[in-house]
Amino acid sequence: MHWLTDRIDQPDLQYYKKALDKQAMLTKPPGSLGQLEDIAVRLSAMQKTEQPVMDRIWVSVFAADHGIAEESVSAFPQVVTAEMVKNFANAGAAVNVLSRYVNADFEVIDVGLVKPVDSANVISDRAGNGTANFATQAAMTEQQMQSALLTGKKAVERAVSHQADLFIGGEMAIANTTSASAIAASLTGIPADQLTGAGTGISNEQVIHKAKVITAAIKFHHNFLENPLKVLQYLGGFEISALVGAYIFSARQGLPVLIDGFIATVAALVASQINTEVKNWFFYAHCSEEKGHQRVLKIMNASPLLDLQMRLGEASGAVVAVPLLQMACNLHNEMATFQQAEITIIEEYR
Amino acid sequence: MHWLTDRIDQPDLQYYKKALDKQAMLTKPPGSLGQLEDIAVRLSAMQKTEQPVMDRIWVSVFAADHGIAEESVSAFPQVVTAEMVKNFANAGAAVNVLSRYVNADFEVIDVGLVKPVDSANVISDRAGNGTANFATQAAMTEQQMQSALLTGKKAVERAVSHQADLFIGGEMAIANTTSASAIAASLTGIPADQLTGAGTGISNEQVIHKAKVITAAIKFHHNFLENPLKVLQYLGGFEISALVGAYIFSARQGLPVLIDGFIATVAALVASQINTEVKNWFFYAHCSEEKGHQRVLKIMNASPLLDLQMRLGEASGAVVAVPLLQMACNLHNEMATFQQAEITIIEEYR
Repeated sequence: MHWLTDRIDQPDLQYYKKALDKQAMLTKPPGSLGQLEDIAVRLSAMQKTEQPVMDRIWVSVFAADHGIAEESVSAFPQVVTAEMVKNFANAGAAVNVLSRYVNADFEVIDVGLVKPVDSANVISDRAGNGTANFATQAAMTEQQMQSALLTGKKAVERAVSHQADLFIGGEMAIANTTSASAIAASLTGIPADQLTGAGTGISNEQVIHKAKVITAAIKFHHNFLENPLKVLQYLGGFEISALVGAYIFSARQGLPVLIDGFIATVAALVASQINTEVKNWFFYAHCSEEKGHQRVLKIMNASPLLDLQMRLGEASGAVVAVPLLQMACNLHNEMATFQQAEITIIEEYR
Repeated sequence: MHWLTDRIDQPDLQYYKKALDKQAMLTKPPGSLGQLEDIAVRLSAMQKTEQPVMDRIWVSVFAADHGIAEESVSAFPQVVTAEMVKNFANAGAAVNVLSRYVNADFEVIDVGLVKPVDSANVISDRAGNGTANFATQAAMTEQQMQSALLTGKKAVERAVSHQADLFIGGEMAIANTTSASAIAASLTGIPADQLTGAGTGISNEQVIHKAKVITAAIKFHHNFLENPLKVLQYLGGFEISALVGAYIFSARQGLPVLIDGFIATVAALVASQINTEVKNWFFYAHCSEEKGHQRVLKIMNASPLLDLQMRLGEASGAVVAVPLLQMACNLHNEMATFQQAEITIIEEYR
């Protein structure tokens, strides 16, 4: 699995500087397009171009089940994972509607539902029949985790072969905020109760219970949580592992990544602890309502683009942010310069 | 000018409730689409429909000059207003690029530049050759203000005749953050220094000077600032008056309005103080970097959709938010319900 840790090329500093110079010539006060300027400049460096593009969007949603669902940590029963996978396959979910809006290539991958879904629209790449309950045992075997990491790598390979300009990973897994909070608590040392939220909508009492389950599990596995891959194996999920693999491989391929919500951001945290060189390839779509998200974003030095109080997962927040990336490119490429527009530039103000 | 103050029909409560019920049936945890749910529900009520649409976007940018520019309050010389109007006419400005992205109908109106711009792409509806310097006299005569208010009304009439689903007003006017800050300070009682920012990019020393100019002007005109229309006349600009007229008439026509940045939000404040019934027709696009914006948004009870550190004006922030409104409609109209998707609903959790 050397592709996880090998050196990763970085965005091109020459194109970064060229893009900064271009931004300063466009007909607007310097900096007045805010984060849209930063997006265009970073994309120029990632794509090694003076004309960044964001035409082909790739969305892979990874679905799996979690043994920890046995511990009454979710508002929905486990069967909903598979039912939502059918919904994705039938193009009825939020992420389907949003993917159509931005004309994205969309796929859903079964990385390990308890029971496979019978649909031609679901890619089957299963690491197991759901993870084990990490309250009492490791969520995955090492082999299962590697299989799920490769599932993410393969998704990026498909994206690259379709000339994608952006990789978006999503997830669907009942009980996976529990897994993500556990991973985040273990990797950051922040107490679990500060990283544990309502997920799909449990009560305050249930949130307290959920945090206790997480704290106990971290304590139980303590001796084995010695590095990010071990944390992923013991506390993670197949879909989180797939996101980690996808994010690292996308960075390795020089394909920009747009990170979705809490679970995706925790996967980005794991990826960055496995290989710190991935970080410059990431954009962060939004800050969700899930309690731990803001904390983890801060640790990642992330500047999320949106804060719409979303908390759905399934890549929805990321796809909602795609038009911002597209508009940032268009502004960079299509706006007139001061010279073209024959606009007075008072040098003392520039 | 009775159209300013006459009663305004409100969005339809029955369709509001129907839309709320529909949202609760869609395949997502209740509330998990955050502000996108609120947008769809409000638009359903505004459009009196179960299928809200956001297809035709109308953008009117009002341009004018300000006498207060004499007081060294802006980073750019006054001539830049006309030069930027030419840039709009030649489709080279940020708002042109963004309008193309959302396929909006775009127009620019000269409400009173110091000197008219010679271009077939500029609508001429001039209230004067720039306003007077409000440091020493009323910015406008009452007649000029009424002319500019009507300029806004006429823009909305064009939007309505083109079957617009949304009205966006923008502005271009060197020195108009000074005017907007003065209006906001006068209407809210908040000290000018708390509402005065860097505009297109002046230094901290210049911001202090700008706030002093505003404070002195409010003191100078104090006896005349007895109602929002007087405040607009004495401290405002032609383009701000046009926005006020447009916002009120758009609400009267039942045409949803998307408010842009600081100056547009101050115009919305004036509109709402002239006629409080306009407010339910407004969406707020973003919180800009301009210092007073957040304060004024709070006073308006606004929940802006974006915070991208933009501070350009010219409707740019509003057009950037349009895809959010469009995606909100699509989600509302196209997502499968739990019943359609045959998804388990555990009643105790709903």
